[in-house]
Amino acid sequence: MFKKVLIANRGEIALRIIRACRELRIKTVAVYSDVDRESLHVAMADEAVCIGPAQSKDSYLNVKSIIAAAEIANADAIHPGYGFLAENAEFAAICEDCGFKFIGPSAEHINMMGNKSSAKEAMKKFGVPVVPGSEGAVKDAKEARAIAEAMGYPVMIKASAGGGGKGMRVAHNELSFMNAFEMARSEAMNAFGSDEIYVEKFIENPRHVEVQVFGDGKGKGLHFYERECSIQRRHQKLLEEAPSTAISQKTREKMGKISVDAVESLKYENAGTIEYLVDKDENFYFMEMNTRIQVEHPVTEMVTNTDLVQLQLRVAAGEPLDMNQEDIVLHGHAIECRVNAEDPQTFMPSPGAVTGYVTPGGFGTRVDSACYDGYYVLPFYDSMIAKLIVFGRNREMAIARMNRALDEFVVDGIKTTIPLHKRILEHHAFIEGDISTEFIERYFG
Amino acid sequence: MFKKVLIANRGEIALRIIRACRELRIKTVAVYSDVDRESLHVAMADEAVCIGPAQSKDSYLNVKSIIAAAEIANADAIHPGYGFLAENAEFAAICEDCGFKFIGPSAEHINMMGNKSSAKEAMKKFGVPVVPGSEGAVKDAKEARAIAEAMGYPVMIKASAGGGGKGMRVAHNELSFMNAFEMARSEAMNAFGSDEIYVEKFIENPRHVEVQVFGDGKGKGLHFYERECSIQRRHQKLLEEAPSTAISQKTREKMGKISVDAVESLKYENAGTIEYLVDKDENFYFMEMNTRIQVEHPVTEMVTNTDLVQLQLRVAAGEPLDMNQEDIVLHGHAIECRVNAEDPQTFMPSPGAVTGYVTPGGFGTRVDSACYDGYYVLPFYDSMIAKLIVFGRNREMAIARMNRALDEFVVDGIKTTIPLHKRILEHHAFIEGDISTEFIERYFG
Repeated sequence: MFKKVLIANRGEIALRIIRACRELRIKTVAVYSDVDRESLHVAMADEAVCIGPAQSKDSYLNVKSIIAAAEIANADAIHPGYGFLAENAEFAAICEDCGFKFIGPSAEHINMMGNKSSAKEAMKKFGVPVVPGSEGAVKDAKEARAIAEAMGYPVMIKASAGGGGKGMRVAHNELSFMNAFEMARSEAMNAFGSDEIYVEKFIENPRHVEVQVFGDGKGKGLHFYERECSIQRRHQKLLEEAPSTAISQKTREKMGKISVDAVESLKYENAGTIEYLVDKDENFYFMEMNTRIQVEHPVTEMVTNTDLVQLQLRVAAGEPLDMNQEDIVLHGHAIECRVNAEDPQTFMPSPGAVTGYVTPGGFGTRVDSACYDGYYVLPFYDSMIAKLIVFGRNREMAIARMNRALDEFVVDGIKTTIPLHKRILEHHAFIEGDISTEFIERYFG
Repeated sequence: MFKKVLIANRGEIALRIIRACRELRIKTVAVYSDVDRESLHVAMADEAVCIGPAQSKDSYLNVKSIIAAAEIANADAIHPGYGFLAENAEFAAICEDCGFKFIGPSAEHINMMGNKSSAKEAMKKFGVPVVPGSEGAVKDAKEARAIAEAMGYPVMIKASAGGGGKGMRVAHNELSFMNAFEMARSEAMNAFGSDEIYVEKFIENPRHVEVQVFGDGKGKGLHFYERECSIQRRHQKLLEEAPSTAISQKTREKMGKISVDAVESLKYENAGTIEYLVDKDENFYFMEMNTRIQVEHPVTEMVTNTDLVQLQLRVAAGEPLDMNQEDIVLHGHAIECRVNAEDPQTFMPSPGAVTGYVTPGGFGTRVDSACYDGYYVLPFYDSMIAKLIVFGRNREMAIARMNRALDEFVVDGIKTTIPLHKRILEHHAFIEGDISTEFIERYFG
C-alpha cells in the first residue's frame, strides 16, 4: 500500500479522500490556494503545501506546483478527486512520468473518453448501445442535416468536446435545424476551442442513469449497480438516488453486464462511471464515461456497503479486485442532496461567512462536508458546501429520512439549496418516481 | 399508526425517538425539566412541556407530571426511552390505565424481568441456560453457604433487586464468604430497600454478550443477533460492538434461537435485550433481560440495516412483525463509543459549557448526540453527551474507522472519554479481540 498520497483537490472531496487514507493508514498531503488556508482539508491532512493564489488556474490547475508539492512531500501517489485535473490526460501522464502513481485510469483511457465521438465509437465497438446518429464528427451542416432527416426529428446537435450542457442544441424540425447547428458550433468553438460537431437522435424526456464500474487494469471488471441522476438543473445534478426507479431488475442486470464487458474489453483501471440516457421503454443509450470518482458516489456506497474511495486506493496500489460480481448485493435505497451555497430560487451563488452550522445525525444519515461553523464560503470555487446522504429500507423511507435530516440541517449566514431540496422531495411527481432530466425546468423553472 | 407520541426522556435518546417519529410522520411531544429548556430534544420536538425542576425525581421520574403532559398534549402513546421510567412497571401500567399506549412490554413482563430471581426462574423454565446457583432467593446465610459449598468456589452473591453492580460480591473461598454475604445484603438494603439475596457460580473472566430481541406480543419473536459489551468500567458499558468475536457462528445461532424461543413463550411485546455471560468455552448463561431499547442499539442497527426504534413504534401501534428470521442478515462490523463528559483518567464528571463541537462524518460514521456548540452539560443527569458509531466491512476496518472518526471529533470546554477510547482501540488485547468484563480494570485500572 502507498505510504503517502497527495490530494490534488480541495473541499469535501479532499476530506473524503483523507478519511479513506487515514483508515488505510496512509499519510496524506493536502494542497491549497492561499485563500484556502483555513479549509478543513488542510487541517485534517498530515501535511499541507500552498500551491498558489486563489484562481484555480494558478493553484488547483497548476500542474507544475502540484508536482513540485508531491516531490517536496515525497508522496508515492496523487489522487485527483473530481473536477480540476481529474480528467486531464496530460496531468495523469505527467504524474506517471514523474514517478507518482496517478489514482485513476491511464492517460489513454482519459483521452479516449474525454472526446465524445471517440468515446461513442469505442463503446459501440464493445457492444454498448449508443444513440443513433452520425459516425463521429460530421463534415459540415449539409451532412448533418442529411443524417437528421434520415433518422427523423427531433435530433440533438452536440460538440465533440462538450460538457456541462455547453455546445448542445435540439432541433425539432427541418426549419430550426440550420440555426441550431450554427449556434452549437459557435458555442463549441468559444467554450472548447474546437467546432467538431456530431448529430444524434434526441431522446425525449429521458432519465439520466449511470453505472458505477471498476476495473483492475488487467481485464477484470465489476459494477456496483446504477445511480439515478435525472434531477438536474442546466445539466448540473442536484439530487441523486440508488437504485433507479426507471428500470426493472432485468434492465439493471443487462446494463451492469454491458458496462462491465466494456470495462473488461478496455482493460480499464480504477473507478469510472458510464452514463446512459434511458427512455420510457427502458431502452438505454451510452452518453459518456466519466473517468474518475463522481460527486454522487456515496449513494452507491450506501446501497452496496462498499467504500469506493478505499477501493480506488487499493486498486491503484496494485491490490486485486478481491470480490466477485455476485458479492456486490444491492439493499435498500439511498438519496443524496447537494447542498450548495446558492439562492434556492435564482441559483445565484451565495458566498460569505457561515455563522451557524449543525449537521444532521442518527440512523442512516451521512454528511460529507468541509464546512464548519465560522467557515467563509469563497466565491472562487464550486458552490457545493455539503452532501447529505441518507439510507432507507425502501425509497419511501429514504425520502422520509431525507426530509427529517434536511429539517435538522442548520446553515446560518448564507443562502443554500436546502429549501429547494425540500420542495423537490414534497413534489408528487418526485414521490411517484415520475422524473426526468426535465423535472426541474418543468416544475421549478 | 400513532398521531402523537410523548417522549418521557431527555438527551440523545429523546432525539433518537423524535427522529424515528418524524420519519414515520408522527407528531412528538418533548418533556423537560426547567434546566433543560435549551436542550436539543426540546427544540426538535413539535411540542414541549415543562414537567418540573432539575432533580430527576421532580421531573423525569415524576409520573403525575408526565401523564398530565400527555393529557394536555393529547398524545396517543408514551415512549420511555432507557433509564428514568423505562423499566418501571407501575409507570407502564398507569400509562395504559390512562389510555396512553406504553411503547414497550407489558407491566407484567417488566415486573418479572425486574426481579433477578423471578427472571432467572422464568428463563430457566423456557429452556434458557442459567448460571448454576440457588433456586431464587436464599432464606439466610447458612443456606447460601451450603449452596456455595455444593457448587464449589468462587461464587457470586447478588441482590435480587440489583443493577449497576450494586449489591454484588464475589467469594473465592469459605473464609471470605460470610463477610461478602453480609456486605452484599446491607448494600442491597441501602440501595434497593430489599435484602433478598441469591447465590450463583462465579464465571471467571467472562464476556458480556447480549441478544437483541423483538416480540409482537402474540407469540411471534425475532432476534437481531448479538452485541459484545464486555468493555465496561464498574458495570457501566463504555464501548460495544456487533457481532461478538467471542462466539462461533454455531453458538450465535443457538443463542439467537434460545432467546427467540423465550420471547415467543412469554408472548413478549416490543424490544428487549437478553444479556448473557459467556465463558471461554462459549458456554452462555442468562444474566438478565432488559425490557427496553438499549443505549447500544445502534451497533445492531448498523449490522442488520434495521431501524429498531421505528420497529418499536410500529409494533406498539399493532403492526405485525413483517419479516422473518432469515430476512435478518448480519453484514460487516459495527462499534459504538460512548462519549461521556468525564475526566478520561479519573472518570469524574466534567459538566460545563461546550465551547466547540464538531462531529465526524463520512462513510460508515454515525453520531447520535443532543450536544451542540454552546450547550451546557448539566451536572444533574447522565454524563453521556454523544454516541459515535461506525461501520466497517470487517472488525479491522471498523477499528480503523473509529480511530479516524475519534480523531475528527472536537469537543472543547469540557473533558471527555475520547482519549480513553483511543487508548482502548490501540490496545493489543482489544485489537486481538481478547477482551472480558475485566478488560478496563486489568489494563486501565
